Amino acid sequence: MRQSGAPRDEKQRFPDKPKEECGVFGVYAPGRDVARLTYYGLYALQHRGQESAGIAVADGRRLQLYKDMGLVPEVFHGRDLDQFKGHAAIGHVRYSTTGASSPINAQPLVFRYAGGMLGLAHNGNLTNVTALRARLTSTGSVFQSSTDTEVIVNLIARYSQTSLEEAVMKCMIDLQGAYSLVLLTERSLLAVRDPHAFRPLCLGGLENGGYVVASESCALDTVGAQWIRDVAPGEILMIDENGLTSRQGIMPRRRAHCIFEYIYFARPDSHMDGFNVNRVRREMGRRLAREYPVEADLVIPVPDSGTAAARGYAEASGIPFEEGLMKNRYIGRTFIQPNQDMRDLGVRLKLNPIRDVLCGRRVVMVDDSLVRGTTSSKLVAMLRDAGVQEVHLCLSSPPVVRSCYYGIDTSNEAELIAAQKPLEEIRRLINADGLHYLSMEGLLEIFGDRRDDFCTACFTGDYPVAVPEPSTAGKFSLES
Amino acid sequence: MRQSGAPRDEKQRFPDKPKEECGVFGVYAPGRDVARLTYYGLYALQHRGQESAGIAVADGRRLQLYKDMGLVPEVFHGRDLDQFKGHAAIGHVRYSTTGASSPINAQPLVFRYAGGMLGLAHNGNLTNVTALRARLTSTGSVFQSSTDTEVIVNLIARYSQTSLEEAVMKCMIDLQGAYSLVLLTERSLLAVRDPHAFRPLCLGGLENGGYVVASESCALDTVGAQWIRDVAPGEILMIDENGLTSRQGIMPRRRAHCIFEYIYFARPDSHMDGFNVNRVRREMGRRLAREYPVEADLVIPVPDSGTAAARGYAEASGIPFEEGLMKNRYIGRTFIQPNQDMRDLGVRLKLNPIRDVLCGRRVVMVDDSLVRGTTSSKLVAMLRDAGVQEVHLCLSSPPVVRSCYYGIDTSNEAELIAAQKPLEEIRRLINADGLHYLSMEGLLEIFGDRRDDFCTACFTGDYPVAVPEPSTAGKFSLES
Amino acid sequence: MRQSGAPRDEKQRFPDKPKEECGVFGVYAPGRDVARLTYYGLYALQHRGQESAGIAVADGRRLQLYKDMGLVPEVFHGRDLDQFKGHAAIGHVRYSTTGASSPINAQPLVFRYAGGMLGLAHNGNLTNVTALRARLTSTGSVFQSSTDTEVIVNLIARYSQTSLEEAVMKCMIDLQGAYSLVLLTERSLLAVRDPHAFRPLCLGGLENGGYVVASESCALDTVGAQWIRDVAPGEILMIDENGLTSRQGIMPRRRAHCIFEYIYFARPDSHMDGFNVNRVRREMGRRLAREYPVEADLVIPVPDSGTAAARGYAEASGIPFEEGLMKNRYIGRTFIQPNQDMRDLGVRLKLNPIRDVLCGRRVVMVDDSLVRGTTSSKLVAMLRDAGVQEVHLCLSSPPVVRSCYYGIDTSNEAELIAAQKPLEEIRRLINADGLHYLSMEGLLEIFGDRRDDFCTACFTGDYPVAVPEPSTAGKFSLES
Amino acid sequence: MRQSGAPRDEKQRFPDKPKEECGVFGVYAPGRDVARLTYYGLYALQHRGQESAGIAVADGRRLQLYKDMGLVPEVFHGRDLDQFKGHAAIGHVRYSTTGASSPINAQPLVFRYAGGMLGLAHNGNLTNVTALRARLTSTGSVFQSSTDTEVIVNLIARYSQTSLEEAVMKCMIDLQGAYSLVLLTERSLLAVRDPHAFRPLCLGGLENGGYVVASESCALDTVGAQWIRDVAPGEILMIDENGLTSRQGIMPRRRAHCIFEYIYFARPDSHMDGFNVNRVRREMGRRLAREYPVEADLVIPVPDSGTAAARGYAEASGIPFEEGLMKNRYIGRTFIQPNQDMRDLGVRLKLNPIRDVLCGRRVVMVDDSLVRGTTSSKLVAMLRDAGVQEVHLCLSSPPVVRSCYYGIDTSNEAELIAAQKPLEEIRRLINADGLHYLSMEGLLEIFGDRRDDFCTACFTGDYPVAVPEPSTAGKFSLES
Repeated sequence: MRQSGAPRDEKQRFPDKPKEECGVFGVYAPGRDVARLTYYGLYALQHRGQESAGIAVADGRRLQLYKDMGLVPEVFHGRDLDQFKGHAAIGHVRYSTTGASSPINAQPLVFRYAGGMLGLAHNGNLTNVTALRARLTSTGSVFQSSTDTEVIVNLIARYSQTSLEEAVMKCMIDLQGAYSLVLLTERSLLAVRDPHAFRPLCLGGLENGGYVVASESCALDTVGAQWIRDVAPGEILMIDENGLTSRQGIMPRRRAHCIFEYIYFARPDSHMDGFNVNRVRREMGRRLAREYPVEADLVIPVPDSGTAAARGYAEASGIPFEEGLMKNRYIGRTFIQPNQDMRDLGVRLKLNPIRDVLCGRRVVMVDDSLVRGTTSSKLVAMLRDAGVQEVHLCLSSPPVVRSCYYGIDTSNEAELIAAQKPLEEIRRLINADGLHYLSMEGLLEIFGDRRDDFCTACFTGDYPVAVPEPSTAGKFSLES
Repeated sequence: MRQSGAPRDEKQRFPDKPKEECGVFGVYAPGRDVARLTYYGLYALQHRGQESAGIAVADGRRLQLYKDMGLVPEVFHGRDLDQFKGHAAIGHVRYSTTGASSPINAQPLVFRYAGGMLGLAHNGNLTNVTALRARLTSTGSVFQSSTDTEVIVNLIARYSQTSLEEAVMKCMIDLQGAYSLVLLTERSLLAVRDPHAFRPLCLGGLENGGYVVASESCALDTVGAQWIRDVAPGEILMIDENGLTSRQGIMPRRRAHCIFEYIYFARPDSHMDGFNVNRVRREMGRRLAREYPVEADLVIPVPDSGTAAARGYAEASGIPFEEGLMKNRYIGRTFIQPNQDMRDLGVRLKLNPIRDVLCGRRVVMVDDSLVRGTTSSKLVAMLRDAGVQEVHLCLSSPPVVRSCYYGIDTSNEAELIAAQKPLEEIRRLINADGLHYLSMEGLLEIFGDRRDDFCTACFTGDYPVAVPEPSTAGKFSLES
Repeated sequence: MRQSGAPRDEKQRFPDKPKEECGVFGVYAPGRDVARLTYYGLYALQHRGQESAGIAVADGRRLQLYKDMGLVPEVFHGRDLDQFKGHAAIGHVRYSTTGASSPINAQPLVFRYAGGMLGLAHNGNLTNVTALRARLTSTGSVFQSSTDTEVIVNLIARYSQTSLEEAVMKCMIDLQGAYSLVLLTERSLLAVRDPHAFRPLCLGGLENGGYVVASESCALDTVGAQWIRDVAPGEILMIDENGLTSRQGIMPRRRAHCIFEYIYFARPDSHMDGFNVNRVRREMGRRLAREYPVEADLVIPVPDSGTAAARGYAEASGIPFEEGLMKNRYIGRTFIQPNQDMRDLGVRLKLNPIRDVLCGRRVVMVDDSLVRGTTSSKLVAMLRDAGVQEVHLCLSSPPVVRSCYYGIDTSNEAELIAAQKPLEEIRRLINADGLHYLSMEGLLEIFGDRRDDFCTACFTGDYPVAVPEPSTAGKFSLES
Repeated sequence: MRQSGAPRDEKQRFPDKPKEECGVFGVYAPGRDVARLTYYGLYALQHRGQESAGIAVADGRRLQLYKDMGLVPEVFHGRDLDQFKGHAAIGHVRYSTTGASSPINAQPLVFRYAGGMLGLAHNGNLTNVTALRARLTSTGSVFQSSTDTEVIVNLIARYSQTSLEEAVMKCMIDLQGAYSLVLLTERSLLAVRDPHAFRPLCLGGLENGGYVVASESCALDTVGAQWIRDVAPGEILMIDENGLTSRQGIMPRRRAHCIFEYIYFARPDSHMDGFNVNRVRREMGRRLAREYPVEADLVIPVPDSGTAAARGYAEASGIPFEEGLMKNRYIGRTFIQPNQDMRDLGVRLKLNPIRDVLCGRRVVMVDDSLVRGTTSSKLVAMLRDAGVQEVHLCLSSPPVVRSCYYGIDTSNEAELIAAQKPLEEIRRLINADGLHYLSMEGLLEIFGDRRDDFCTACFTGDYPVAVPEPSTAGKFSLES
């Protein structure tokens, strides 16, 4: 149980994408195998976090917890899930946005407080956590981890003179920023979403009764649950032996759903807050084609994140779609890095250009976003090596110019290429014949009259909730 | 080091596909990091075998070997490849076709014999191994594994009075069946292909000198080697300090390249024996569309194996292509199986239908082949759950009706649904509205005047090399 | 990170001894490798706890922590201790007395509170922890583990308006029971001993400056420190850049050093609170010989715990000492248990009688204590099998009749054979020809005019600090 | 499965002792749990080899094998021994004497040959293995490991035209050097001892029928078998459904039992070839006292190997015996080494002087042997630090001046301090006040009229079997 030091496998991540955040899952289903349902639910949410995974199960009397660093199947490999009997469970997959990559920061947290036992799993990021933590420590709280989540836990404990729901409501008055929470007591399951509804959270029903909540609807599908609705901004759902009750925990504010979920994070088969992810991505590609029509022979995606948009581009432009880059499906986290002798092979290990398809062609290459630009320039070079005549790089999102404070680990602004350099210079740096970002307007039009319901801060700097001083963003850690 | 017992994770394999066989890789490149090149080469060949991996390195004086059960990155995780210095190396990824799934059967084999040290890695399957092994044991040989490869090793040792090349030539007279071999001595690298050229094997060149041999050209791409040519039927390539020499080890027989490499096994970005895999698959889809034109709203693939053919079908039919089934990319080998409570979730964990795309539509679902039919019937049920109106299942290969004895683990004939039931009954069993296999003629036409250069035994029973008695096929094991 | 469930390897412990408790270690030595010194110190204290181990290091700015389940070398195997740079460190080895055997209960605890960061390691057991925890939760504290230690942590945090030393002093007013603590801040090391001084704690000096505190003096020897003195009852030692300062944290009460440390727990090469452990044990044997003189041919120990006393018995009686039972030094924690077929082999795997030495002899077998009696009866049977004529079992402690509430895991009273049955019945049950316990008076006389300085509650029921209701003793857990 | 490279944990061994060799175990007992009996038997033999362990089980039809690197409990931890059903089994623990420390060299070997399947485990070392291997490879044998054992396997296979017993007899004509073998076929168990009977091997009987063979009698005790007799020089024991049969495989030569078994290797509770190990060691001490009477206050052993001799010295001299050095029982293989800062702590981690016992005293320190002298000089320094006035080092064996070629890994002669320097210089180097080796004559007298039955080559250079050229001793490896 390491509590500090460098995140493991740090160098093995492909650095040119915003990092995934977290996924949460909860199920209340007496008579069902809730631990196993949660295991499969987390499996479906694995793309939202690959650093740690955990499940807590309630059986009416107590909570049992198992969590560790690693992918869902790694963490639970060899575990006898049948030992985790209960009627309700919550689960979490994590990619660290705050707090070091460390076992002590793995979730769910399970703790004992005046109200009994409580388990909690959190997706999102608070913006006022430093102030809240200071307030709590000044009156005697202690913190063993560097997560936002432990702050929420302590706030709930402080407010626990009456019911848990009321404690959560009081807590919501304190919390600023993004939080989609699932809570587990000995006898009930709660789901909570912040008043802006930054991060997704939806509710489903199981065939023979029972409810499921999850970050994305694909997890409902996986466990055989029917989607019912999204959890509303500021809503508290409580599920127990009396069934499902809802209350407004705090007044909703303007919706600010993370738009990057649609661009990159969410699974294409999920729908959230009214939109199907795959459809949105396809439409981004169509709009790209209209905004940036080029003479070309092929449209190719950067798999997998650019595939849907590339297909949209091809449809709208009439240019044939081809899979010109073959992805190695076995690239994992324990990959040995190339040394000096092979320094140019890095991207090629992951993506191999199909020369047959590409040689002599003019190509539109579609990706979802450009963060630091390093991978893109290698891809362009690789395409040229494969005999491509022209490369036009089309991105299905506007330029990322600001950091996110609501649960996504974009690089800081000094590393964001679009924050530092004009378009033409970027194009030259990556040696593309053309470079086009989807316009902000083009992106928003996809959502029609719902266009104002999204957080676009990373493109516009228009932060729905006040952000901390730059110097402290993402810097708090137990070690500081 | 387990030498017997049930293969691990047996139940975790999706049982409805022919099993991948093995992949081999070899490099001769003094001055380069040959161990690391082999590591990356095996990475690119990982789809050919996920049970064990190994690398042997020669430094002019000795051979060093490291191998274990697991994926390439698992086997070498934490290994310091820099310790494996040398000028030549061979590597192997394995999916057991003969011999139990056991560390003792992992390859390469490295052994000491009268000629010094020798490493050997094998892709393929011998048909006369029982007779050869009996002949060898009767004159004093011992066998520690149940692999064909150890038989080849012992034959070479018996013929080693003169040069290794001559020993290999004598050995080729004895061997019947499929073998693509790479051999490593202290000072040289050899590549050998059987006279029918069942399994692929190609040669590439490195920029600053040095040669690479690999099962598929995608491995050449990955390590930055230029494709030179395929190894010829019956050819022995020898690479040492004097460069590359070729000799005809045995008279070539009629070519019998495994046609299933093009249908399912090989990576789409590989080209082998004159044909690009991706193009062949696309063309299969186009021919499917012409052979079986249906009224439908969508063409969807069963990802990833049906993707290229589905795209071809869409092109030829004009019916829009959609990714209607979302694949969970994190499904791995250590997956905990659903229990009784969730027995219908098995396929859904791997593939999730996108309801938005599918609901109310008539769908052509394209897959590469139908072996036992169990997965297909679940997929059809899942599509119907998602509101699909009609499902037409199109397969880009003819019915698989016979077992393979040349290195592929198809089920035995009693389990092959097409060997047991007429088309219409299969259609009814899987509850599809239509079912169509690509015709044998349609398949062969793709290869034009080269149509007779392929082994089609699994479709036709036309075995290019006499096969063993049914009772002994694939049954030898150390335990027997 | 398992937080509940059955302790692992529970069945593999030999159940007939009181369980070891915990060991603590601390070092303040700028310029030295404090992590490694702590590692070796814990190594020397390994006999005090084999379930988990941990080290926290302070570098003036922050605390780093590593801990896990397992023996010291297992926990730190493959860890690069050189990464843990600092000027002070604390360490802990644990055998769970309260709290489940679980990673979440491993120590040290490291947490952030109003005063900065604090690390804490604890040996002992509080008797009023349930009341303290209730008081804390009622005012908003949360508990993630089931250890006493987390209660101490929260109390300190509540009292942290002024200095840490004052917070510890306030905390000592609340705490009842046994505690030897080491605390680590960014810049200082503290050592605290309860006012009865139940558990040992001593201070040593390093050659070039620097201080060490440890549960036993053998740990000072191991790291090359000179013993200075024992920490006094109720004393707080503070070591920082200004050197060592001492203050009386709370008024000392009557000394109540655990007498079982001398009988069984402590290493023979330690001296604590004025007495050398080996000498005390030897003297126990001498007194046994005088209290229970028998006609016998040999004195044999039950190794290793009975060895020193057996030697004393031999000296005083003149009967030759022999090692009649050979101990297998490789018995470890991962031992596969005998099944029905071999149910009588259990003790024999650990101890083998040397027939040559024993056959035909009358034997005095010396052990340190008798808890449940199960092992003793097997040993007697084994000796008789080896041809022993007479077996006299002599125990170097009085009958254990009461549970310990101060940090030792004796069985509960229903399982203590001496609490349930008269001496003669016990003798018959274990089938010995004679059975003798060292008398209480004989034991105390060893300590001369210090005889009243010890806790003898497990023999006498004379508890120096009020004990909790029987029903709650050792029963609190996070799961309850 | 590493086949080459440096032995793991090489540096963690305390280098100043001859290395243990191997232990073998076999059981034939239909109806009993033979795998588990073998597991416990290997446990009792663990002191003979800690690098790898393995068990092969025969069920009348086939052999199952499991082996790996590590201690017996580590190798079989988590294994379900109940899966290894059978009526006979063999096992092996190994410390590499020839062959690298590598999984490929772990034993038993299990192989298929003309006669069916055969398992083989070997304790000892052949002196003509290079010639035998050359002869075999020249006629077509291949070797996958660098062990002597694979050579024996191949010889047996070559001679297998008739029965296995006859093949073994022919093989014994070829083999020179030391070998105690257990062999396992589908239906029988064999035990074989070389004509000099270098290494121990004994036979025992189980209560309800069934036989056990083992390197040492302590393993018989552990599994509840009664010792019957030692296997005779050149004898072949065959156990099958017809019971036990014995035949003289080869004419016995002069007995040459390894005398170092009695000095250091064997467990004290074993008796072998007519002598109880503990008694021999005690007598060595008595003779030491007579040969080297000194004025001293205490006799202390270097635990554990010097304990029995120290006790003998004390008895004969009348000087009190004390345990002046406390051994840390938890020192294991995964121990992190001290760095420069703590370079003098090395021995202290393992052995701690008890100052109370030692301070101001004149001490006789008894150890079994002196190989390189490095540890002894540290021990003497440590004793002086603890206030010892005089240190007389007494060794219960004569000076080790020659290498062993029969299965023990003494250092080579250049490293043997007694081969390089005169006694007085050694005494000065280790800074002892006196140094005495047991005389050759004194050692041999212990064995009375059996004094010529032992191999004393390491003391005398009188090798019973011709040894290989120095340059090749112990140097063959697969890599050479």
